[in-house]
Amino acid sequence: MKIALAGIGKIALDQHVPAIAASPDWELAATISRHGRVDGVEAFTGITDMLAARPDIATVSLCLPPVPRFEVAQAVLQAGRNLMLEKPPGATLAEVHILQDMAHAKGVSLYATWHSRMAHAVAAARAWLAGKTIHEGRIIWREDVRKWHPGQDWIFEAGGMGVFDPGINALSILTEILPQPVHLTGADLDFPDNRQAPIAARLSLSGNITADLDFRQEGPQTWDMEFQTDAGRLALRMGGNLLEVDGEPSGGADSIMGEYPALYARMAELVQQGQSECDLSPMVLVSDAFTLGRRMTVEPFEF
Amino acid sequence: MKIALAGIGKIALDQHVPAIAASPDWELAATISRHGRVDGVEAFTGITDMLAARPDIATVSLCLPPVPRFEVAQAVLQAGRNLMLEKPPGATLAEVHILQDMAHAKGVSLYATWHSRMAHAVAAARAWLAGKTIHEGRIIWREDVRKWHPGQDWIFEAGGMGVFDPGINALSILTEILPQPVHLTGADLDFPDNRQAPIAARLSLSGNITADLDFRQEGPQTWDMEFQTDAGRLALRMGGNLLEVDGEPSGGADSIMGEYPALYARMAELVQQGQSECDLSPMVLVSDAFTLGRRMTVEPFEF
Repeated sequence: MKIALAGIGKIALDQHVPAIAASPDWELAATISRHGRVDGVEAFTGITDMLAARPDIATVSLCLPPVPRFEVAQAVLQAGRNLMLEKPPGATLAEVHILQDMAHAKGVSLYATWHSRMAHAVAAARAWLAGKTIHEGRIIWREDVRKWHPGQDWIFEAGGMGVFDPGINALSILTEILPQPVHLTGADLDFPDNRQAPIAARLSLSGNITADLDFRQEGPQTWDMEFQTDAGRLALRMGGNLLEVDGEPSGGADSIMGEYPALYARMAELVQQGQSECDLSPMVLVSDAFTLGRRMTVEPFEF
Repeated sequence: MKIALAGIGKIALDQHVPAIAASPDWELAATISRHGRVDGVEAFTGITDMLAARPDIATVSLCLPPVPRFEVAQAVLQAGRNLMLEKPPGATLAEVHILQDMAHAKGVSLYATWHSRMAHAVAAARAWLAGKTIHEGRIIWREDVRKWHPGQDWIFEAGGMGVFDPGINALSILTEILPQPVHLTGADLDFPDNRQAPIAARLSLSGNITADLDFRQEGPQTWDMEFQTDAGRLALRMGGNLLEVDGEPSGGADSIMGEYPALYARMAELVQQGQSECDLSPMVLVSDAFTLGRRMTVEPFEF
């Protein structure tokens, strides 16, 4: 099946393009990007031109930042094409609700992806936690924004999400593996004095779960979550890719390269079955953190 | 039908108690409040005591501030009672999703009320706008927090919503009367230097609609919305109670005293029919404003 990819930046080149190239389901038939392109693939600079010129491309995947995404997403659905969205699926919840309604009305597939849910050990963690009682949970998600988003000022603009750009990956795993729904009970958000999005956040969630998110960690990076249950301890490390039970390794793989291939396989399945998948629960927790959170001002941040 | 009222503060005494007293459907059978009480009505200080002592009361109405509301709401539903919520229905979206699931599982009625939707001219405005094209909309919602919430510091705490406490009333009307769903495209939020919730906000919404919310207006108070359409101008004044078409009065009533009686009549209907009503779209727009909005610091505020 032919697919077009919009937003040819770092994440597209690192993850989406190789995943599509390796996929038995998909052929990259066009790109849409102001500056980026992929060798040997027809390049457009605007979504409208692509949709008009290539009626043979039934599916479009967007890896644009959240703020400009909605107009492109709407154009894709309006043209009756299937739509796959990088996380988070929009800058606001209300706009994603509108996309859900449009996809339903047009009878096309909408897939709001959460790549971290495809990490190697997530399904095993979900299965292990099923039916157990969690006494305590701890998420530690600390990475270096300079390494992963070099010079990407949009991430600290209003709507850019700041530390929730990686943090929502943790929340997407959490909402996938917990046996019970979770809600936010409190949050402290650290805003650099010169920025409009938080650089760190400490969340309290129901069920005695906390999350420590930080974008300022140099040296070794940490993407861990740990749960104390009535039947032992579970830990997910490396962003959901490695599993530990009671301190012993219990499966997974030390690589994130399986996530995007799994997303494109799932998109193929959804398109073939005429279905949609759009779980907004990770995004709801982030919105709730912005709504309920206390704001602290911390020192200015420059890349 | 017997009903209990939790949270006996200003809004309970000004609106809920008189509305229940005047209702042909309801009898106020108990109150739950740390300090407040209503003459001649059995008074409890905790929800657990009331639920245990009064199995004859099948419905509970909450007019607590958003942050402490969830635990009480959960206890009510867990005990298999019908639940009516003052707006906003919770401090977070995730907790209201949990309440929706609980009410469904318990087979009881959940009603997330929006009192401004019951204002005299809202239904007429909705009917007039149906099928018309809106070129521009303008909401001006300016009131004096010292007059309406004297000394209520919780409103400026994290989760207290600040100016969105009244502003969500405007958004509840907007989402009720528009022929199309609306989403937020930008927001500027003014946070007093000594407070954790905004005292003013300027919102941009899809369809060329803006909202100017301010909690600092002394003198005459303004709760207006105006729409330019392909078939004339519509204005709602006095918080949705007065209608104007092309500048001429066109119905409504200069009083807000009909709103709460209408809410209790609707709750009676929902309970009798075994149904729920829980539209979160006004709350989604507020969460989106906190998520997407730019934060400005303005001068400190004291009551």
